[in-house]
Amino acid sequence: MISTPERATTLQARRLGIDTRQEPIIYLRADSPVCRSEGFSALSRVLVHTEHNKIIATLNIITGEMLRRGQIGFSESAWLRLHLNTDDNVWLSHPRPVQSLSHVRAKVYGHSLNKSQFQEIINDIVDGRYADVHIAAFITACGDDKLNDTEITALTQAMIDSGSRIDWEEPLVIDKHCVGGLPGNRTTPIVVSILAASGLTMPKTSSRAITSPAGTADTMETMTDVSLTLEQMKQVVKQEGACLAWGGSVRLSPSDDILIQVERALDIDSEGQLIASVLSKKIAAGATHVLIDIPVGPTAKVRSQEAADKLANSFMTVGERLGIKIQILYTDGSQPVGNGIGPTLEAKDVMAVLQNDTDAPQDLKQRALTMAGAMLEMSGTATPGTGSDKATSILETGLAWEKFASICNAQGGMKQPGEASYLYKLMTEKAGRVESIDNRLLAQVAKLAGAPIDLTAGVEIHAKLGQQVHPQDPLLTIHAESSGELNYAVDFLESHPDIICLTSEVTDT
Amino acid sequence: MISTPERATTLQARRLGIDTRQEPIIYLRADSPVCRSEGFSALSRVLVHTEHNKIIATLNIITGEMLRRGQIGFSESAWLRLHLNTDDNVWLSHPRPVQSLSHVRAKVYGHSLNKSQFQEIINDIVDGRYADVHIAAFITACGDDKLNDTEITALTQAMIDSGSRIDWEEPLVIDKHCVGGLPGNRTTPIVVSILAASGLTMPKTSSRAITSPAGTADTMETMTDVSLTLEQMKQVVKQEGACLAWGGSVRLSPSDDILIQVERALDIDSEGQLIASVLSKKIAAGATHVLIDIPVGPTAKVRSQEAADKLANSFMTVGERLGIKIQILYTDGSQPVGNGIGPTLEAKDVMAVLQNDTDAPQDLKQRALTMAGAMLEMSGTATPGTGSDKATSILETGLAWEKFASICNAQGGMKQPGEASYLYKLMTEKAGRVESIDNRLLAQVAKLAGAPIDLTAGVEIHAKLGQQVHPQDPLLTIHAESSGELNYAVDFLESHPDIICLTSEVTDT
Repeated sequence: MISTPERATTLQARRLGIDTRQEPIIYLRADSPVCRSEGFSALSRVLVHTEHNKIIATLNIITGEMLRRGQIGFSESAWLRLHLNTDDNVWLSHPRPVQSLSHVRAKVYGHSLNKSQFQEIINDIVDGRYADVHIAAFITACGDDKLNDTEITALTQAMIDSGSRIDWEEPLVIDKHCVGGLPGNRTTPIVVSILAASGLTMPKTSSRAITSPAGTADTMETMTDVSLTLEQMKQVVKQEGACLAWGGSVRLSPSDDILIQVERALDIDSEGQLIASVLSKKIAAGATHVLIDIPVGPTAKVRSQEAADKLANSFMTVGERLGIKIQILYTDGSQPVGNGIGPTLEAKDVMAVLQNDTDAPQDLKQRALTMAGAMLEMSGTATPGTGSDKATSILETGLAWEKFASICNAQGGMKQPGEASYLYKLMTEKAGRVESIDNRLLAQVAKLAGAPIDLTAGVEIHAKLGQQVHPQDPLLTIHAESSGELNYAVDFLESHPDIICLTSEVTDT
Repeated sequence: MISTPERATTLQARRLGIDTRQEPIIYLRADSPVCRSEGFSALSRVLVHTEHNKIIATLNIITGEMLRRGQIGFSESAWLRLHLNTDDNVWLSHPRPVQSLSHVRAKVYGHSLNKSQFQEIINDIVDGRYADVHIAAFITACGDDKLNDTEITALTQAMIDSGSRIDWEEPLVIDKHCVGGLPGNRTTPIVVSILAASGLTMPKTSSRAITSPAGTADTMETMTDVSLTLEQMKQVVKQEGACLAWGGSVRLSPSDDILIQVERALDIDSEGQLIASVLSKKIAAGATHVLIDIPVGPTAKVRSQEAADKLANSFMTVGERLGIKIQILYTDGSQPVGNGIGPTLEAKDVMAVLQNDTDAPQDLKQRALTMAGAMLEMSGTATPGTGSDKATSILETGLAWEKFASICNAQGGMKQPGEASYLYKLMTEKAGRVESIDNRLLAQVAKLAGAPIDLTAGVEIHAKLGQQVHPQDPLLTIHAESSGELNYAVDFLESHPDIICLTSEVTDT
C-alpha cells in the first residue's frame, strides 16, 4: 500500500505582531488538521510556502483561541521574510534535514571543517534554516581557539559570499577596526573624518555592540542616520570620500548580523569568529588596507602581549590569504578611553574632540591621532614618521570636524544626542589616587543601565588612572532611561567595590 | 540625583495557550509602560513574580492586539511553572545576571569545571534560568570528550542533587542501561520481567528517546501507563519487585529531562553527558548494581572496540567514585535488533518474546537472555556460568510474561499497542544476500516517519544480515500516522539506496 501525497491544505496568514528577533516562528492550533496530517508538534521545524517564497520556521502550538481554524500565525521575522499580506494563502511541508548541521556536529567532535562545509553552514544560517539553538551550538563549537587559520579563512570567505560585496573602483580603500574590550574607545568617527579630509577613501561600515555597551554604529546612530541602503552609502562616499554607516542594513556579510544576535545572548565572542566577523565585513565593504587596533590590558578583551601576538598573527595570515593588507596597532588597554561609556555619552566625547573643545578627553584625541597617523603612512599619504603630525594638523585646523559634519549631513542630517533622565553619582569616601579600573565590570554597569539598546544610558567616568581624588569627589555617574535599570546598575556597582580602586595612602596635593 | 524604586506595576495574567516546551515565554505589548520603565526589549530575560512564586522567562514583544493594556501573556510552560490563574496579579523585574553562565563560558575556553560550578549550572537550569540557547552552549561546550572523569563525576552528582533520590531500603537494587545507537534493541522489558520473576528488586525508570526513534519509556507507553508518581512507583515495586516507568515524571535527575530536549534538537549526545545522564538517573533511582550494555558496530553509536573501552573505563571510574557497582557487557551492534523500530513496533517484538511466540525475533530473545543471565550472576542470584540457563528457564516457562503482565496491571492496566494507518513496503528488485544494514540511516527513516512522537510510526525489517532474498521479497515496511510523514520517509529512503545492501551475486536456494 503506497499513499499518494494529498493536495496540501492552504492556511490563511495572520500577522500576530510578535517580535522574536531573527528566529521565524509560526503558530498553529493544536487541532489544526495540518498538524495531524503532517505530524507537526511543538518546536517542529516546518517549511512554509507562499506562491513566491518559502522559509523554514519553528512551530509553536496554540491551545487557546488566538487563531481561528484554518489560520496560521506569524512572528514579525517570519511575516517579513515571506513578504506576506493578511489572508495570503500559505501551505506547509516538512523541510529536508539541514545537512550542514552534520558539519556543526563534526566541529563539536573536534574535526576541522573545509571551505564548502563552512559555506553550507553559513548559507543555511542566512536562509533561516537554523533555529537559535543550532546557531548557539555552532558558535560554541567554534569558541576559544577551536578554528585554525585555514578554517577562519574559509569561514570568512563563506561569510563574504553570503551577502553583497562592494567594488569602489579605487586602488586604495582604507578601513580600521578595534577588537574592542575597552569601553569608550570610540576613535572611529574621528579617524574617518581625518582620513577623508586628507583625501582618502574610507567607506566605514560598523557593527552594533556584541557584548559591549556600545558599538560604533550605536554611537553614530545618536548623531545621524546609519541605516543606509547600499545606494545611499555609495552616494555618500562618492560625495564625501567616506561614510559612517551600520553594516547590517547593506547586507554586507549578513550572516554576521545573525551570529552576533546569538553571540550577544551567550556573551561569547571567540577569536576565530572575531576575525571572520571583522574581515568579512571589511572585504565585503571593499577595503584593501585595514588597520587593526588591539588594546592590551589586564581587564581588556586581550589581556596579555602573548594573546595579542597570537590574535595579530591570525589576522595577518587570514588577511594575506584573502588578499587584503593588514597592519596591527597595539594600544594601551588598561582603562576606559574618554569620559563616556554608552552610545550617547561616547558621541559627546567624539564631538568634543572633533570640535577641539578645551575639555575634550585628551586620551581619546591622542589615540585617534596615533591611529590616523599610522593609516596616513600605511596608505602612502604621509611619509613614514610624519603621519601623526599631519593628522594633528587636520584635526586642529577644524578640517576634520567640517568633514564629519558633511558626512552626517550626507547621511541625512546631524542629530543632537539626547540626555538620560535617571542619574546616579558615585562619590569617593576617602582621598587617594586611582590605582586600577576594571573595564569589564564598568562595561557591565553600563549594560545594566541599558546600553546599548537605550542610547543615552551608560557610565560617565570622572577620574582616570593616577588621578588624585578627594572625599566627595565624583568617581562616576550612571545614566539610565528607566528607574528599574538605574537601580539594577547601582545594585551591581555597590556589590562590586573593586570597579575603581584607590591607593590606600592619603596624599596631600 | 538618586532615583527611588517605583512601586512595581502589576499586570493581569493571561494564559495564551502557546506550547513552547520547556522555555518559559512571556508576552508584553510594545507600548506597555513596564517595558519602558524597566527597559525590557524583545528576548530580554525577565524575572516574573507572583505572590508565591517567581521564574525567569524570555520576553516576546507584541505589536498586535493580542493583549489589552495591563495584561501579560504566558506560554504554557511559564503558566504552569507559576501555578497561575486567569487575572492573577504578576509583576516584573530584572533578573540578576546568571552567574553560572560564566562557568559555561569558562568551559568553552577549555577550562575544567569543579563540583560547585557544575552544581550552580545544573541548579540554574532546573530553576529555568537558562534560555534554550544557553543550554545549547552548555551541551556543545561539554561535547565529544571535553569532560574528564572528575568533571563527569561532578556533573553526575550535581544532576542527582537537583532532584529526588529514592532509598529502597534494600541491600541490592539492580538496573541496566543500553547506551543506544542500535535501533530496536528493546531488551529492558524482557530483562526486568525475568529478574523480577527471580526475586530481584529492579525499579526500572527509563528515559524517552534522545536522538533515536524510541526509548524504553516510549515503547512501554504503548503497553501501559509509564507516568507514575513516586508514590505509585513505590507501590508497584513493593508489590511486584519491579516497575517499568518513565523517569521524567518522578523528578529523578530533572535536569536530565531538560538537557535531553535541547540535545534532541541539536542531535548531540556527548560521552560525558551520556554517562552523567545514565548514572544520575540510576543513582537517583536507588540502584546499587548496574549493567551497561554497549553495542559495538560500524553504524552503532559506539563504532570501535577502542571507543567502547574508553567509554567503559569512564563508566567504571565514575561509577566507583559515586559508590555504585558497574558491569559492562559488549554486544554486537552490526544491525538492528528484533523486527521493529519505533515505540509500538518494538513493543510487539517484546510481547512476542515474552509470550514465547514461535515467530518472536530470536536475536532480541538471545540478547535479553544474555543480559539477564549476566545480571543474575552479578547479583549472586545465579552461580557463575549458570545465569543464562536460569534466565531461559524463567522466560520459557512463562514466569517472565506473568510478571510483565502483573507489572503492567500494577501500573494501571495493560494496553493494546495501536496500528499505523499509512504503510509503505520496500521490495527487493534482485536476489541476493543481505550484506550490510545502516543503523543510523534506518533510525533516520523511522524518525522521519514520526517516531518516537507518533507511537505507531517506525520501520519494520523483514531481512536480517546474511539472509537470502528474492526479487519482490519485502525488505522493510515504513509505518506512519500521516501521509506527509510517510512521503517524507519514503523520499529519504529512495535517496539512500545504501540503507540495506545486498551481495551482488545471485545465489540459488
